[in-house]
Amino acid sequence: MAASGRAKQDQQLDGSKLKIAIVHARWNEEIIDALVDGCVKRLLSVGVKKENIVIETVPGSYELPVGAAALASDVSIDAVIAVGCLIKGSTMHFEYISEAVSNKIMDIQFKVGKPIIFGLLTCLTLEQAKARAGLIPGVMHNHGVDWADCAVEMASKYGADFRTATWK
Amino acid sequence: MAASGRAKQDQQLDGSKLKIAIVHARWNEEIIDALVDGCVKRLLSVGVKKENIVIETVPGSYELPVGAAALASDVSIDAVIAVGCLIKGSTMHFEYISEAVSNKIMDIQFKVGKPIIFGLLTCLTLEQAKARAGLIPGVMHNHGVDWADCAVEMASKYGADFRTATWK
Amino acid sequence: MAASGRAKQDQQLDGSKLKIAIVHARWNEEIIDALVDGCVKRLLSVGVKKENIVIETVPGSYELPVGAAALASDVSIDAVIAVGCLIKGSTMHFEYISEAVSNKIMDIQFKVGKPIIFGLLTCLTLEQAKARAGLIPGVMHNHGVDWADCAVEMASKYGADFRTATWK
Amino acid sequence: MAASGRAKQDQQLDGSKLKIAIVHARWNEEIIDALVDGCVKRLLSVGVKKENIVIETVPGSYELPVGAAALASDVSIDAVIAVGCLIKGSTMHFEYISEAVSNKIMDIQFKVGKPIIFGLLTCLTLEQAKARAGLIPGVMHNHGVDWADCAVEMASKYGADFRTATWK
Amino acid sequence: MAASGRAKQDQQLDGSKLKIAIVHARWNEEIIDALVDGCVKRLLSVGVKKENIVIETVPGSYELPVGAAALASDVSIDAVIAVGCLIKGSTMHFEYISEAVSNKIMDIQFKVGKPIIFGLLTCLTLEQAKARAGLIPGVMHNHGVDWADCAVEMASKYGADFRTATWK
Repeated sequence: MAASGRAKQDQQLDGSKLKIAIVHARWNEEIIDALVDGCVKRLLSVGVKKENIVIETVPGSYELPVGAAALASDVSIDAVIAVGCLIKGSTMHFEYISEAVSNKIMDIQFKVGKPIIFGLLTCLTLEQAKARAGLIPGVMHNHGVDWADCAVEMASKYGADFRTATWK
Repeated sequence: MAASGRAKQDQQLDGSKLKIAIVHARWNEEIIDALVDGCVKRLLSVGVKKENIVIETVPGSYELPVGAAALASDVSIDAVIAVGCLIKGSTMHFEYISEAVSNKIMDIQFKVGKPIIFGLLTCLTLEQAKARAGLIPGVMHNHGVDWADCAVEMASKYGADFRTATWK
Repeated sequence: MAASGRAKQDQQLDGSKLKIAIVHARWNEEIIDALVDGCVKRLLSVGVKKENIVIETVPGSYELPVGAAALASDVSIDAVIAVGCLIKGSTMHFEYISEAVSNKIMDIQFKVGKPIIFGLLTCLTLEQAKARAGLIPGVMHNHGVDWADCAVEMASKYGADFRTATWK
Repeated sequence: MAASGRAKQDQQLDGSKLKIAIVHARWNEEIIDALVDGCVKRLLSVGVKKENIVIETVPGSYELPVGAAALASDVSIDAVIAVGCLIKGSTMHFEYISEAVSNKIMDIQFKVGKPIIFGLLTCLTLEQAKARAGLIPGVMHNHGVDWADCAVEMASKYGADFRTATWK
Repeated sequence: MAASGRAKQDQQLDGSKLKIAIVHARWNEEIIDALVDGCVKRLLSVGVKKENIVIETVPGSYELPVGAAALASDVSIDAVIAVGCLIKGSTMHFEYISEAVSNKIMDIQFKVGKPIIFGLLTCLTLEQAKARAGLIPGVMHNHGVDWADCAVEMASKYGADFRTATWK
């Protein structure tokens, strides 16, 4: 269940003072539910208080950047985790959505001055998505766990400097 | 006719206080007409008043971002649905238009401070487009329905926070 | 000579009050000349006055965005048509130029507050380009005609709202 | 040695009043040297004075946009020619660098208000690069010549309007 | 161990007055450790003082732009080296992350007014990454060395002009 090459934590994560929002798309419900669940459990286990975890949804992944930015407009939020699951279909929908969302999640971090964690699976098959949601025992771990760690780390390490940078 | 994995609505949609603009390209008229028709019917069924649905056209999909932004400049509009249908041809026209439009529809949401719904089909065949417009009975549903739901949801859930965010 | 699926005009075009600039690259002269010619003739036929058609050139397609933006900086200009013809060669030059130009023509519309019409052919063969310039009788129509219609329509329908939008 | 389809000059080039900077990457030295040499000779032959040609280097092509922008920050510079040579290797380095540089050279023109000429070869083989640097007699011309012409033309035709455009 | 075509230094590098930050992702630890090690040793050997080398980490490569920007917000930092190692997997994760990071590292240089060195390996195999980290004797050199040289050169040559450019 270990990810080969998975990044090792280099600091003790402490989410006790952080408020984290999760915004997730609703397509591929089984996958999303598992990812969000893994994410929430990990946030709690690294000290984020239950009342400091905000969960909201958007219809599909293309809506994640607006949802994430709207949630980030609340000054009390320290980081947003954007969760979605795109699976290749027969048209080019997958490619154009994936590119637009990947680039805009990156971009809005610099608009809102807060980390937005990229929790978007871009899979070629449903099987790949299930594996990354921890739904196939013994294959891969639930990636929602990584995103929770990432949110707490990024907000702790870079949140203050990033939010107040004069070049914004 | 159900879409496997289609996102379930997580709130009661209420469009009764919303004003929604639809801007659509005119290429592939049969497809577009079906999509816009499905979109309008759904908007009405979730409570948007007939007089609060504005429909305007642009020549082709490349013009959708400017059309959408111009419509969004009317303060009374809560969201814009941008509808187009691109089908792969023998040159690379399809790829470059699809990419530019997908990215700019995403982007202008942050300029105008309102959700712009991505109603662009990027299909490899006309058959694929017909299926997604609900024109092949029993195969797929009319995607215009999803876009109507999406517009009402995004305007309801995120419209106010997004429009007034201080980081804009 | 009809384009299957070609967009039908949904309004009477009237260019009599408009001033339109054409900026074109000079590579593939035969193609470009035909496209610009088709464009100018159509502008005249929908009422644009001869003295209100400005034509300027740039060396290659990569220069179109700067040329278009410079022309658009003249307040009397209502829209710019950017015409170029890129043909796939043996290096990746075609792909990177096509992408950069397609995205920047899109983008500068929001900088200058005016429609810039995308008149860039991105063809895999010279034959494809000739067909789209109307140079192969009976195959396809001269796409310059579409771009003229597009310029007049976009300037007429959206020009005022787009130019004065407060969100710029 | 003629390029089929090569753009014909439509004006007499006069560089006597212009100051042009060349910034070049240093990878693939033989190619770069030939391109810069062709570029300089042409600048001189269209009237740019020797003392008005500034040459500076960056390590690799990814650094070209910053180098070009820094050079353009000198108000006396009228245009910058960015010269690099990327050749496909076994990783995806070529693709991501090519895309980022092609798009950012385009973009910074609008930041600095001056033409930045795209002198980046994106080749699949060293042979292709040699040909485009004029190093394989009788095959292709030295593309540095085109870039010199382009710089003088763009600065002459569009420099003033572009630099002072109110929409910047 | 020499890189064919590797750029030759065209100036004596002197890092004695510079403060350089390295931000690195933690995935693929063996590769990253070698790259950062090569980078640090080279910085020291071209005169950067040990106390003027700041090292910080982010979880994965997608986080590099925010980490780099946060570090660059410290006025005493002259340049940031962003180090990561992406390896193609079975989903499209590699492609979308690579594109978003390559473009945003490029972009933020213009936000923060400082060079951010692109130290991202985008490899199709682990073997390729090892070679570029200097871990396969006799095959390739440690690319961290190039990035160190690049940081010192870019900060020395362009840092002052770039930071104070009025067009920012």
